[in-house]
Formats: sequence, C-alpha cells, structure tokens
Amino acid sequence: MTTLQQLYRSSLSLLTDLYQLTMAYGYWKEGIAEREAVFHLYFRKAPFKGGYTVAAGLAHAVEYLQQLHFTEEDLTYLSSLRAGNNEPLFEKAFLDYLRNLRFTCDVDAIPEGSVVFPSEPLIRVRGPLLQAQLVETPLLTIMNFQTLIATKAARIKEAAKDDLVSEFGMRRAQGIDGSLAAARAAYVGGVDATSNLLAGKLFDIPVSGTHAHSWVQAFESEADAFEAYGKAFPHDSIFLVDTYNTLEGVRHAIEVAKKLKPTGFKLKGIRLDSGDLTYLSIEARKLLDEAGMADTNIVASNDLDENIVSSLKQQGARINVWGIGTQLVTAYDQPALGGVYKLAALKQENGEWNFTLKLSEQLEKTSNPGIQQVRRYYDAHGFVADMIYNEAAPLPEKVLIVSPLDSTRRKSVPVGTAYKDLLQPVLAKGKLLHELPDLKAIRKHRAEEIGKLHESIRRLLNPHAYPAGLEASFHQFKTDLVLALREKGEEALKEQQAQ
Amino acid sequence: MTTLQQLYRSSLSLLTDLYQLTMAYGYWKEGIAEREAVFHLYFRKAPFKGGYTVAAGLAHAVEYLQQLHFTEEDLTYLSSLRAGNNEPLFEKAFLDYLRNLRFTCDVDAIPEGSVVFPSEPLIRVRGPLLQAQLVETPLLTIMNFQTLIATKAARIKEAAKDDLVSEFGMRRAQGIDGSLAAARAAYVGGVDATSNLLAGKLFDIPVSGTHAHSWVQAFESEADAFEAYGKAFPHDSIFLVDTYNTLEGVRHAIEVAKKLKPTGFKLKGIRLDSGDLTYLSIEARKLLDEAGMADTNIVASNDLDENIVSSLKQQGARINVWGIGTQLVTAYDQPALGGVYKLAALKQENGEWNFTLKLSEQLEKTSNPGIQQVRRYYDAHGFVADMIYNEAAPLPEKVLIVSPLDSTRRKSVPVGTAYKDLLQPVLAKGKLLHELPDLKAIRKHRAEEIGKLHESIRRLLNPHAYPAGLEASFHQFKTDLVLALREKGEEALKEQQAQ
Repeated sequence: MTTLQQLYRSSLSLLTDLYQLTMAYGYWKEGIAEREAVFHLYFRKAPFKGGYTVAAGLAHAVEYLQQLHFTEEDLTYLSSLRAGNNEPLFEKAFLDYLRNLRFTCDVDAIPEGSVVFPSEPLIRVRGPLLQAQLVETPLLTIMNFQTLIATKAARIKEAAKDDLVSEFGMRRAQGIDGSLAAARAAYVGGVDATSNLLAGKLFDIPVSGTHAHSWVQAFESEADAFEAYGKAFPHDSIFLVDTYNTLEGVRHAIEVAKKLKPTGFKLKGIRLDSGDLTYLSIEARKLLDEAGMADTNIVASNDLDENIVSSLKQQGARINVWGIGTQLVTAYDQPALGGVYKLAALKQENGEWNFTLKLSEQLEKTSNPGIQQVRRYYDAHGFVADMIYNEAAPLPEKVLIVSPLDSTRRKSVPVGTAYKDLLQPVLAKGKLLHELPDLKAIRKHRAEEIGKLHESIRRLLNPHAYPAGLEASFHQFKTDLVLALREKGEEALKEQQAQ
Repeated sequence: MTTLQQLYRSSLSLLTDLYQLTMAYGYWKEGIAEREAVFHLYFRKAPFKGGYTVAAGLAHAVEYLQQLHFTEEDLTYLSSLRAGNNEPLFEKAFLDYLRNLRFTCDVDAIPEGSVVFPSEPLIRVRGPLLQAQLVETPLLTIMNFQTLIATKAARIKEAAKDDLVSEFGMRRAQGIDGSLAAARAAYVGGVDATSNLLAGKLFDIPVSGTHAHSWVQAFESEADAFEAYGKAFPHDSIFLVDTYNTLEGVRHAIEVAKKLKPTGFKLKGIRLDSGDLTYLSIEARKLLDEAGMADTNIVASNDLDENIVSSLKQQGARINVWGIGTQLVTAYDQPALGGVYKLAALKQENGEWNFTLKLSEQLEKTSNPGIQQVRRYYDAHGFVADMIYNEAAPLPEKVLIVSPLDSTRRKSVPVGTAYKDLLQPVLAKGKLLHELPDLKAIRKHRAEEIGKLHESIRRLLNPHAYPAGLEASFHQFKTDLVLALREKGEEALKEQQAQ
C-alpha cells in the first residue's frame, strides 16, 4: 500500500474545486469531454527570490492520479448538490459517466529532485479534456507545496553547508498533511532528519530529537532532569540547556556527563533554544572543550531560516547541528508557490491541434501554447541553459533561446552541445510505466543537480539568473498568437462598440 | 465515523515529535509517568497584529485524543528505532506499556468560535504526565493552524461586511489537509462557502465555484464558451470574463445572457480575476445595469486579502462577492500562529502541587504556573475584560487584572459584574462528556462573540487592546516564582563559578 493510500484511505476524487466538476459536466454535455488536450503545470517565479527551484511532490501526484475514481459515496454527495432552482446540479447520466471514469491520460514529468526554472512544465498531462482538467487542483496542491518546501530546504542546507539539519516544525505546520508533506519535501530538498515520527514511519526518513523544557520542569532541578534523561539515553542525549539560564544549563550538562561517564554515558549534544546564539554557542563550546567533550554537538533552534543560519556562521557561532521548524515547514517568508496549470493544446474536430493560451496584461502571466518539452544543455562544468520548445513543431538546427520576460535577452547554444530532455514519460494511458525512484535516490539526484549549478546561481541573495527561456521559433509562434488574439479582441471590441 | 477518522484511517498516534516518545520513555523509566500534570495550550500574540483571535480546531483535537492508541504497526516502527550504540532505542517493556495506553486525561477547553486573547489557555490537559506530554505536538498542529485561519477569515469577513466571501485557495494550500483544515477553519471564522468539494462533503460546508480560463480557451470564441456553460448551468453560471479582455468579456457575457434568456437562463454573476478591479467592476456594473441585469453579481478574485478588500471598497469598487484563495488558506502575511503547550503544575510525591514555569529573558515567553481558568466579564454592551486565574488558589473578592506584559497596566472590575468561565469540561478521564457543537452552531457562536467586541477592537489596523491579563494575586505568585528561580539560578551559577 502506498503512503498516500495509507494516509487517505477515503476516496480523494472530490479533493478538487467544484468548478472542475462543473466544467467536466459542461464538457460532457457539449460532447467534447474526450477531446485530446494538453495541460502543463509550471510556476512563474522562483520562490524566495532564489536562483533555482527544486521540483518535488511527483510521487504523491502520481499516486493521486492512479487512485482517481468516484466512489458511490462521492457520487451520492455530488447528486446532493443543488442548482439555483433547487434541481440537482448534475444530471444522473453524468454521474454514471463519472462512476466509470478512470484516469487514462499520458503524463510526462521532470523527475523529483531536479532543479527547475520559471515557465518550465514540471508535469505535462495529455489526454481526454475532461480528465486532464479535473486533476488541476490536486496536482497543484501537491506540487506547489512540496516544490516550495524542497526549495526552502535546499536553501537552508546551502547555508548550513556540511552541518546536519533537522526539520522539527510539525507543531507550526499548516495541518496534519502540512507537517507530513513538509517533512518529505524537506528531506528531498536536503534536510537530514525530521522530528516527525509519522513522517519517519511513512516515508522512511531518519528521525531525531532532543527533549522539551517541560522535561526539565518535571524534576527538582535541571541537573536531576539531565541525569534522568541521560540514564534513559546513554548514547543519544541532547540536553536542552535554556530552561532557566543557558550557560548554567551547559555546566549542569557537563556535570551530569562527568557523573554518568563511568556508566558508559556519552553526551551527544546540547541544544540552545533562545538568547544570543553566537555568544552562547562560543561560550558553550569553550566549556565543553575544557571538559574534554570536544565531540559533543551544539544544536541550535529558535525560528531559524537560511538567512539567520548564514549570519550566525559568519559571526563565528560554534553551532554544528541546526533544528529548523516554523520557517522551513511553512516557508514562512513565502508560504505559497504560485504554480499554475494551463491548457496549451486542444485537438479540433478535424484532428488538428489548436494551440491555445491565456492572455494577460502582465507578460509573465500569459501562458505558453503548444506541446512543451524542456531541453537542458550541459557541459563538463555543469548546466549551461534550458530551452522550452514545442514538440509538435520542427526544431531549427541552430539553438537560440529567448527570455520569456525580455525578448531582447537571447542565448545561443553551440551546435553539438550535449543535452537531455527533462520531461520523461511517467504514465501511459494512466498506467505507471516504471516504479518511481525512492526518496534516497531522489536525494542523490537533487544533490547532483544542485552540484551542476554555478555557485553564483546557488547564492542565497541576489543570485545570477540561469539562462532559461523559449526556443526562438516557439517564442515567435507565441508572439504571433498573442498579437492575433489581441487584434481579434480589439476588432470584436470595435464591433461591440459600434452596435 | 468522524471526519478525521474518515480522512486518516491510519493510526495517528505517531503523529508527534520523536522527543515526546523519548520523554515518555524517560518518565516511564523514572517511575513518574503516572504523576498528575497540568499543561495549557495558548498563544502569546494575536496574529496579523489584530485585536482578537478566533479559537478553532477543538473538534479535531478531541477526535485526535480519542483515537490515541498505538497499533502493532506503530510499535513495530518504534521497536525499529536504534540508539547510538545500535541497540533498540526503547525497551520492550516500554512498548508493552504503550500498547495498553489509552488517553485518560481530563480536558477543558474554550469552545470553538470563541474570541480569545494572548496567554489564555485554549485547552487545559490534566492527567498522567506521560499522556499529557505526548499529545503536545498534534494538539499544537491542529489548534495553531485552525485558529490562525479562522482569525484570518474573520478579518476578511470584517472587511467584506455583508458581501459573500468564498474560500478557494486549495491549489495553493500547504498540503492536502492544509486545504481541508483551512476550508473548515475559514468557515468557522465567517467565510460563507468553499470551492473544495471534499471539504464540502466532509464538513458540510456550502460549495461554490465559477469556471477556469481553460474553459474559455477550449471553445472557438469566448461567447461560445459562455453559451455552452450557460446551457449547462442556467441558474448558477458565473462567467470568468478576463481570459482575453475583461470588458469585452463582460459584453460577451451580457450578449449570451440575452440570447439564452428565452430558455429561462439567468446570469448569476461575472468574475473579474485580473487588472484594476475598482475600475473594471464599476464599468462592468454599468454595463450589466444598462442591460437590465442589476442582480447579476460581480465576483472578484486575484490574491485578495482583508486589506485589499477594504481598500477596494473604499475606492468604490462594485464587487459584491469575494473569492479569496492563497492569502486566506496560507495566512500569507503570517503563516504560523506561535501557539505553545506548557507544563504548569505537577503533583509531587507528597500529593501537593508543584506549580512550575519556564523562564525566559523575553517577558512574554515566561510561561504561567498554576491550574488556570479564564474568567470573562461582560455587561449589556459586550465583553469587558478577561482574567486568567489559578483555580488552585483562593480568589480575592475584589477583581484586579494585571497585564502580563506591563504590570503597571491594571484594570479593576466592579464587584458584581457578570462573568462566565471560558474553559469548559470536554473530556473526563478521556471520555467525551457531551457532543461537541456542529459547524453551524460554532459559526453562530463566533458571530455572537465577535459582536460583543467593541468595534475599536475589531478594527483591522492598529486595534485597541482588549483588557486581558492575570488576576493580581496570581500575577504576584508568578512574579515571586520567577524571582525565586532567577535567584536560585544565580546562586547555583556562583557556586559553579567558585569551583
């Protein structure tokens, strides 16, 4: 049984917006439900003003698609919905159609853990219009959040360098799955462990933890509390030292460690959870080193994020394990990735593709038409450039990439440069083509991918922009389409106004 | 079957931090697992710089507590955890203890939908130390998030006044339960409907929706798209008019409405999703009114929150239905409520209470000791003041309330003022005392509660501070305890330093 199924044994087919069902009904009534469509899921801007984004969530998205079917309970609920005239909102024949519906689209996706850039489709869904439309909302929910958190985790790991980072934000997470999905995505992004036991069990993530202030409060004295914990965990104790006074707490920790030493006890670490972490960690390190406890870790927590971790390291803080909670699991400084899912191609009755887009006055909000693929060029030093192109059109031999936000910014790639196409087949007519990689393989892939980015792109603040854009003839095709739509709009407007 | 059970049929007993289990093990080994303890769940600061907070999540918290038991699968996982020396982290006898563990604490709580203030316990758990400790993390996860979102929803509803507000943020929510719990909490807080069908089904929340841009793109022309949708939904159509050009879209909507009128069609609304919403709504209103469609709603969406809604209304925007997504379901400007769960009393071996607190250099982070209750005074105009007091100490007749953050700010309440105690018994020895209110009753309660706050406290920006604090003798008791702990700390420090 898959993890999502374990968690959500209830049908998830209603986990979508009402309008997906009303549109489905409309397509069905119009007789165009089965018409072949292509949708792409992508985001418009890297989160946290960063230079790159780490794709995550695909395994859960695929599990969702595979379990898609409406149960009798779901259909009973849908049949209970009423229109404005108090008649059923949906005809019975449509509910019968839904009863037999299974997900039969082709799905291509960029593997989890890959680095990705704005406008690049993370997932491409191709198949019957009704089905491909229906799954918009859950795909976005799953991919937006996990991609956001994996990226945040990668940034925190970038700041922490070789130090261990543990996620322990469950208590501030946005709901139960907010904590579980965040733990998974943080692990994809590079965090080493979680405090969340259920995430540990479901996703096979290493779990770690210390103890709470209440443990110390429950004993006569701090030293008594440490001693009791130390006896229970002779090899794994990390004493939280700030319940009353931090440096005094460190001294108590050392005292207890010395007392218990003859029993085989070894203090794994102390945790600082308040106050000036730089000062306190330097002083704590001195005390520990003087006591011959040079390999006792100093763990820090207290509303940390990648910027604070960077700053503390620059200040010379002697922290070597980082506990990151709220800021990581909620992506506090940007708690949502604005990913979208747009129709880009629809087969006409005559069997030809109609490439379509949504216009916007904001350039980055105009979607891309076509059946898209992402080609990544690389050399011995790493990734060189990404190019989004239309698979349904011929590719010119000479590679020219145009920035989607500024068409005067162009990059040409020498003929013969090595490349790989990022979107890989995952589902064919709804059937899984091969097992998806496990989390350890995904983590390995993520580490390799980030390693192929120039360090100026990995920089946390004001990173260099990685060259990613539209293939030139594809850009031209889009531009022509936008201009035609605008013209048509204006003509229609004139007609309207002339009436 | 309860909704949480429906959703999460898997055991949720591991939905907690590892350290809760390691502390449980430690308490068990020390023989103090069954010692009676009192914990309080509270937050330190109202979210969004607001004047009040709306408590939410209790029903889910109680469901969680009632289902608490470790399955064989959970125990197998726990037995697989390894200590630093590669031995099992937990003894077998402890796992046997967990196997038989059921939640037998007394739980008192402030009803869902109540307005609450910093430091006030939303939940008080009294019972065996091990159990009361164990549930810290999930209680915080559930209460922090739902309280946050209910408060955000109340603020948005405050801004929207009598207009309908619909939540449709699922696609940007933090995970699957992020969307479901947010939909529920938003409904508690005052939002009128959700787009989330599963939330509609599970929680009996009215569902609403329009259609997407892809619907328009799927047809030859915008007018064709509107006509097809209008035929499918003659009483419930809300046309999204900005796929190509907003005002042109409004004209197409009117045109189609006129064309379909003979079939009984009536356009419920149009939706604006981009551009200058004030200008476009005023122009759209004119066009609709001129066409004799004065009761066609104008729905707006596009990254709205309470501040933008307020501003649009001040500008004279003619919007009368609000679709709120990302900003609501993620509480974008403050995506976490910093609620905590602190040990405040522990019975000693001699049967007497030991009242305990956690010190902090930041005044608001020092916890309150005692067995706390919240007394709310009110008169014919509404709520007057809240007083946190220690149930285990005698109450003086004269009521004096001291601000927890500034002990020179005090409020006396005339003898004889009416009051109610907010914490009400919910579970006795783990057993539910009475059915919890349903969502409709909770919404009614929330509306009444907010109605009893002076409008200066409900103000969105720079609200007046509602008088809420500690009963004077309780405040004195706490102060004495803090001073004693600090003194003890300093003495111990001197001893340390003298060595």
